[in-house]
Amino acid sequence: RIDPARLTSRVERLGKIGALEGGGVCRLALTPSEKLGRAHLVAEMTALGLDVAIDPIGNIFGTRKGRSEGPAVMLGSHIDTVATGGLYDGALGVLAGLEVIATLNDGNIETDLPVVVAAFTNEEGARFAPDMLGSLVFVGGLPLAEALDIISIDGKRLGDELQAIGYAGTDQGPEEVAAYFELHIEQGPVLEDEAIAVGTVLGVQGISWTELTIRGRSAHAGTTPIRLRRDAGLAAARIAAGVGAFVRAMGEDQVGTVGAITLTPNLVNVVAEKAVMTIDLRNPDESLLQAAEAKLAALIEQVAGEETVTIERRTLARFQPVDFAPTLIEQVDGTAKALCLSTRRLFSGAGHDAQMLARIAPAAMIFVPSVNGISHNITEYTAPADLANGANVLLQVTLKQALP
Amino acid sequence: RIDPARLTSRVERLGKIGALEGGGVCRLALTPSEKLGRAHLVAEMTALGLDVAIDPIGNIFGTRKGRSEGPAVMLGSHIDTVATGGLYDGALGVLAGLEVIATLNDGNIETDLPVVVAAFTNEEGARFAPDMLGSLVFVGGLPLAEALDIISIDGKRLGDELQAIGYAGTDQGPEEVAAYFELHIEQGPVLEDEAIAVGTVLGVQGISWTELTIRGRSAHAGTTPIRLRRDAGLAAARIAAGVGAFVRAMGEDQVGTVGAITLTPNLVNVVAEKAVMTIDLRNPDESLLQAAEAKLAALIEQVAGEETVTIERRTLARFQPVDFAPTLIEQVDGTAKALCLSTRRLFSGAGHDAQMLARIAPAAMIFVPSVNGISHNITEYTAPADLANGANVLLQVTLKQALP
Ligand SMILES: NC(=O)NCCC(=O)O
Ligand SMILES: NC(=O)NCCC(=O)O
Repeated sequence: RIDPARLTSRVERLGKIGALEGGGVCRLALTPSEKLGRAHLVAEMTALGLDVAIDPIGNIFGTRKGRSEGPAVMLGSHIDTVATGGLYDGALGVLAGLEVIATLNDGNIETDLPVVVAAFTNEEGARFAPDMLGSLVFVGGLPLAEALDIISIDGKRLGDELQAIGYAGTDQGPEEVAAYFELHIEQGPVLEDEAIAVGTVLGVQGISWTELTIRGRSAHAGTTPIRLRRDAGLAAARIAAGVGAFVRAMGEDQVGTVGAITLTPNLVNVVAEKAVMTIDLRNPDESLLQAAEAKLAALIEQVAGEETVTIERRTLARFQPVDFAPTLIEQVDGTAKALCLSTRRLFSGAGHDAQMLARIAPAAMIFVPSVNGISHNITEYTAPADLANGANVLLQVTLKQALP
Repeated sequence: RIDPARLTSRVERLGKIGALEGGGVCRLALTPSEKLGRAHLVAEMTALGLDVAIDPIGNIFGTRKGRSEGPAVMLGSHIDTVATGGLYDGALGVLAGLEVIATLNDGNIETDLPVVVAAFTNEEGARFAPDMLGSLVFVGGLPLAEALDIISIDGKRLGDELQAIGYAGTDQGPEEVAAYFELHIEQGPVLEDEAIAVGTVLGVQGISWTELTIRGRSAHAGTTPIRLRRDAGLAAARIAAGVGAFVRAMGEDQVGTVGAITLTPNLVNVVAEKAVMTIDLRNPDESLLQAAEAKLAALIEQVAGEETVTIERRTLARFQPVDFAPTLIEQVDGTAKALCLSTRRLFSGAGHDAQMLARIAPAAMIFVPSVNGISHNITEYTAPADLANGANVLLQVTLKQALP
């Protein structure tokens, strides 16, 4: 069994790094505050006796050797956050990994396979798109050189930012992964609503991120007749409102969000000449996600025509729905039940590093409840008992894989 | 007659201050670049022998004494610009005033009444709301103390910014104004469309500026069911799109613009917790403007209810339509005709300092054509011959008032 108080303390200590005044944290990927989080993590790994390796995309791996040189059992997630993030999203999976290691150390338990705790770079995708970038590069889904050239929302090159914080590593991560487990908060309302302790995650829904750059013509708000305008701001608003409408019409499983809109020059009496906006569409069903994308495309074309603006599209992220490994799903579910924890199978609404690891290894996830289903919000919260439940399931499945 | 080449050179020289790379200028009120513009203007006034006075809101007055101490004939406008401004908006009225003074000097013409060239603070309203702020304070329409406490779009107090650039003056402007004339580019398409040299301005349409602060709840874009969201970004988009729709439905005379939308945290995968946006509504008819405001109010209430967000409203500016003095209108029109210039009477779509001066004195405006009707855009342009036509009308009406 893991030590619940020690796990909670781990979460609280990392949560002080990048802490916001009203609560919550801001550790956007590769910023100074995330660098401090990385330094804290590396120090904790070293204190636990792990061999620390940093790969060229900045992923951090802490390895506890096994009796054999075999493939690694990997426990991971991320420590970057959105700008209005909570203490649990990502951090839990990494810190519960450390707690599993500490528990193995305490019991002098030698495993057969090495156990690796991983923290992947830029999982959130809030500063650099796509999300799950570090794990995507790790599994070979995105060439390193391409990833290093990605530009952040604040105009910085990823490779330069990695250098700047000192995490452009030269090591390689584990060559082979026997199994990957990720403990994460649900970030949605299902487990809490049904009073269930542990969620067994079946997979992750599909994700489609688009950035639009709309170009119109700046003009005087008082003198320019509506029929002569090419209003980039109005075009952006119509697309955002249109996304809201078609998403609602597609029913509960489809979600869609316009989280970012930036107008230029953004002044009260100037018709906007430019708008940059993002659209996040998700659906567990690939064909329905494609249907949503088709609706978006039609909407863009209609608005571009009616508002006489040009609209440039860029795909920021596109991941199909992912199913986790059936054997590991059974193992998570059986382990939770054996620990007398109530469980439920569910799909993940958020993207996770596990969906990338699933491309190269059997992968699975364990969810614990989020109070009010709230995440990407400073009030994100999961009770200590729930954290401990999840970490205990993580410990047991690790032992099952690493010490068979 | 004024000197056309000298007038054009005045415009070009001021246009170098705050010049943007691709053309146009950015001299937002009370910024370092506008300070340079002010210093240039004061130097030019001094070189022309004018007595320069700066009042407590930073309005600049350059006085050419008359034979009598009587009320002043004032020629004015502004030298601040929007962020994507042209060389003519405002600058023309001030610089043509200097050109009139230079012409009087050249001819050793003594006038009966003093002639004052005025540059009013923050006419654009782009950095501090309301627009026409300096002239509004000058005519007693806004208490000085209140004006000094206004906060800019970049969070600075007007009084502090005025101190910072050294233009918190201690002088007073002219005590009495016999007549106020403002030469300005039309900023709209009418004169050019009809190939007319000079517009005689009948008045200014009503202006209504509202700022909305929408508060929702930040949430995860992938995990949060639509029905549980309180999406401030979607609410802002629906209001902006709704304004676009009702304005179109109200017909040609009604214009409406959402020029500024700022989301927080403005990230791809976070439902926005806050949106701040502006709405600019204008109509030459006060009752129709009120009808548009009522439509906006209903839209805000509907969207607030449907998206479960709270919406706070603040009036940034509200000016009723203004009619200029019939005698001066006739004088402008007659003078243009006497100079063999084609004229047309028209209403102004933009706000102008003249509409504030009209509260304390007979006021009138002279318009010259804007190429393609474009303004608040770096490609704003008026041909040298048109500038000269306008300045010659300004010279003649000045003589008629100051040397009766
Ligand atoms: N778990 C999580 O919040 N991931 C961020 C990527 C996304 O789903 O938007
Ligand atoms: N003339 C001019 O552009 N004034 C700015 C105020 C406004 O009309 O928005």
